[in-house]
Amino acid sequence: MPLAVDLLDTLKRQTADGDGVSRETYGTGEQFAHNLLRKAAENLGLEIRIDFAGNLYMTLPGRDRSVPGWITGSHLDSVPMGGNYDGSAGVVAGVVAVAAMRKSGYQPARDVTVMGIRAEEASSWFAGSHNGHLGSRAALGMLPLSELNGAINSRTGRSLAQHIAEAGFDANAIAAGRKALERERFLGYVELHIEQGPVLEKRAIPVGVVTGIRGSARLRSARCVGAYTHSGAVPHEYRSDAVLAMAELCYRLDLAWESVREAGGDLVFTVGKLYTDPKAHALTKVPGEADFTMDFRSQDLGTLNGMISRTRELTNDIGQRRRVRFELGDFNISEPALMDARLQEILMREAHALGINVLAMPSGAGHDAQDFSQAGYPAAMIFVRNGHGSHNPAESLDLADLALGTQLLARFLAS
Amino acid sequence: MPLAVDLLDTLKRQTADGDGVSRETYGTGEQFAHNLLRKAAENLGLEIRIDFAGNLYMTLPGRDRSVPGWITGSHLDSVPMGGNYDGSAGVVAGVVAVAAMRKSGYQPARDVTVMGIRAEEASSWFAGSHNGHLGSRAALGMLPLSELNGAINSRTGRSLAQHIAEAGFDANAIAAGRKALERERFLGYVELHIEQGPVLEKRAIPVGVVTGIRGSARLRSARCVGAYTHSGAVPHEYRSDAVLAMAELCYRLDLAWESVREAGGDLVFTVGKLYTDPKAHALTKVPGEADFTMDFRSQDLGTLNGMISRTRELTNDIGQRRRVRFELGDFNISEPALMDARLQEILMREAHALGINVLAMPSGAGHDAQDFSQAGYPAAMIFVRNGHGSHNPAESLDLADLALGTQLLARFLAS
Repeated sequence: MPLAVDLLDTLKRQTADGDGVSRETYGTGEQFAHNLLRKAAENLGLEIRIDFAGNLYMTLPGRDRSVPGWITGSHLDSVPMGGNYDGSAGVVAGVVAVAAMRKSGYQPARDVTVMGIRAEEASSWFAGSHNGHLGSRAALGMLPLSELNGAINSRTGRSLAQHIAEAGFDANAIAAGRKALERERFLGYVELHIEQGPVLEKRAIPVGVVTGIRGSARLRSARCVGAYTHSGAVPHEYRSDAVLAMAELCYRLDLAWESVREAGGDLVFTVGKLYTDPKAHALTKVPGEADFTMDFRSQDLGTLNGMISRTRELTNDIGQRRRVRFELGDFNISEPALMDARLQEILMREAHALGINVLAMPSGAGHDAQDFSQAGYPAAMIFVRNGHGSHNPAESLDLADLALGTQLLARFLAS
Repeated sequence: MPLAVDLLDTLKRQTADGDGVSRETYGTGEQFAHNLLRKAAENLGLEIRIDFAGNLYMTLPGRDRSVPGWITGSHLDSVPMGGNYDGSAGVVAGVVAVAAMRKSGYQPARDVTVMGIRAEEASSWFAGSHNGHLGSRAALGMLPLSELNGAINSRTGRSLAQHIAEAGFDANAIAAGRKALERERFLGYVELHIEQGPVLEKRAIPVGVVTGIRGSARLRSARCVGAYTHSGAVPHEYRSDAVLAMAELCYRLDLAWESVREAGGDLVFTVGKLYTDPKAHALTKVPGEADFTMDFRSQDLGTLNGMISRTRELTNDIGQRRRVRFELGDFNISEPALMDARLQEILMREAHALGINVLAMPSGAGHDAQDFSQAGYPAAMIFVRNGHGSHNPAESLDLADLALGTQLLARFLAS
C-alpha cells in the first residue's frame, strides 16, 4: 500500500511534536492533514466538498448516482503529543480503498464518500468540551451553541466558536443546527479505526468488527466526607474514616462488576482518581475526606443504570454504617450506541469470504460512528489491531493489519 | 483551684498564637512555661533542679529522704497553634498537688518530684524527629546523637543539637548518654494528661486510668504500582488497577481489624493518606499507581505483628490476582508500653476511695510515660476528660475534671 505509507509517513513527519504528533483541533496540524488528504483525493479525481464546519468529503461517484451511497471516514485531528494512527488510519484507509477501485477501473454501484472529520479530539484542546466529536455532530446538526461558546482553547483562551471562525468556517451555521448531510442520500456510515485497547493484540487477531460503542455513566468530581481525628486515640466506634468508607464502596462495586461479567454482561468500571486532601491528610490522622471520580462504561444502558442504582444504594448504606457523607452529584450519562446488526453481518460475512480472521468486540472509547448512529444512520466500525493503546506516541500499527482492514472496508463499500 | 487557674490562664495569655498557643520546643514559648512553673515552685519553697537537657525538677522533700520517691510530670511545649492543656495540665496538676500538701502542712512519706519535661512535641517543630519525647529520653540517657543532629528545625534550618546549645543546655552530655535521674532514687513515674480522644466525653466519665500506651507499626511511604490504561477500551482481564487493588487491601484489613475487636483485642488501623498521582491520573485512565500510609496501633506487640503478617499475606495475594506490585518497605515499629499493674491498682483503689468515677483505658497517643516505662520505671497515667481532641485550639478541659484528676494524683503521691 504505497499510498497509505506515503500519506501516513507525511502526516507523521509534518505534524511531529517530540516523539508524537500534534494535530490541534482547528489548528495547523489538523489543517495540514485536511490539505494532504484533499490533494490525494484530487489526484484520484474524486469530487471534493468542504462543509461549514470544515469537514472534508471526497466522493467517488457510483454507477447510479440517484441511489443512497456509503460514507466512510474518521477524524484527522489528534490529542497533544499523540500517536500517528488514531483517526488518520480510517481516512487513509477510505482513500486507499477508493484509490484501489479507481486503479482497477471498478466503479461501485453507489457513491462512496470518504469523510475527513474535524474536531473529534476537541476535548483534549478545549476545556469545557467534555463530549468531543464536534465535527461529526456539527455535520449532523447536533452541536449546540452552548458547546461552541463554552469550550475554551487551553492555549489561546478563545472559544471554539472563535477558533472555527478564524479557521474560515461558519460557527453560526453550526449553532443554527444546519445539516451538512441529507439523511436520505446515504445508506449508512462505516469507520475504520485502530483498536485503543489490547484485545486484538492479546488474542492475536488482526481485525475486529465492533458490536457497539460503550456509553458511560460518570462522576467527574465526587467526595466522601468524614471527620479528621487522631489515628491513635480514637476508637473504631467514634471514627468517620473517609478512606475505609471508599475502600468498601470500591470493593463492593468491584464485586458488582464481577457479577455483571459472570452473567455475560458488558461493563468496565474505573476509579481513575482517588485522593485524600494533601493539605490536611497525615500519617497520624483518620482521613476526613476523599475525592474521587468514577467511570462506568457499557454497551447496555440498563447495565449502566443498574450500576448507578447500586452506587446509590451502597453509598447510603455505607454512609450510615460508617458515619460518612457521600457527595456524588449527578451521573454524567453518555448513551451507548449499538452498531447496526445488518452492517455487522455484512462485515463478518465479507471478512469470512476474504479469509480474514475477525473478532466481534465492543468499542470502549467513543467514536464519530456513535454520532451517526444517534442521528439515525446505520453505522458500523472496523477495528485494526494496535499495540500500546492510543493517544500516545507508542501507538503501533502493523501495515499488514491495516491492509487487511482496508481490504474488508473496500469490499464492504463495493457492496 | 486558684493556682491552677492562674497558671493555665497565664500560660495561655503569654504563649498565645492566634486562637491557640505555640510553645516551641527549646523556643521562647516553652521557656516561658518553664520560668512560670519554676517561679510557682520557688514560691512554694520546693527544691529546684534543671538538668543538662533543660528539664525542670521541683521537689517537695519527704519525711524520709533516703527512700525512693515519686516523679510526676508532663511536658511544657506544645505543637504550633496547639491547645493550652496538652502537657501543661500534667505539670500544673503536679505543682497544685504538692501545693495542697504544703498548704495543709502535710509532709509526704517520700520525696515528690514534679518534672517539667522538655521537647515532647519536638516532631512538630523539627523535621526528621519522628519519635518525639526528647526531653524524657534525654533525662533517661536514651537519646542518640543521630537524632540530635538529624532533627532540623523547620523554621531556622538548624539542628536540634544547635538549638539545645543555644538555649543554654548541654547537647554533648545528652549524646554521651548521661542520665539526669538515678533509677534507684525513684519508685516510679505517674503522669496526668488530657485524653486526646473522645472516649471519656462520650461515656460521661471524668477520669481515666491508662492501661498501656499503644505501640505502632507504620508504613510512612508505601505504593501500589499497576499500569495506566484506557478506562473504556481495556477489559477486566488486562487491567492492573492500583485503586481497586488498594480498595481490596484496605477493606480486608478493615475486616481483620473487626476480627481483632470481636476477639477483645486492642487495635486501631488508619490509612491516613491514599492518593493517585495528580500528574498522571484522569477520569478516563485506569490508575497505574496509588501512594499510601498505614498506621496500626495496639497495646499488644503480638497484635501489631499479626497485622504486619496479614498485610504481607494480602499484598502478595492481591498483587498476584490483580497484576499489581506493592512496595511497602519496612514497617516502622514503636513498641507498646504497658503501664505498671500495681500502680494501676493503686490508682483504681484510690479513685474508688475518693468516689471518682474512672475508666480503665488505653492511650492511643504516645507520652513521656512510655519512655520511663521503657527505661524500667514502673509508670502510670491519669487521663482527664477533654473535648475536641488535642493539638488544636479547641481543646476543652473542664476545671472540675482537672480538679478530680489532681485529687487522685495527690492521693497517689501521698502514698
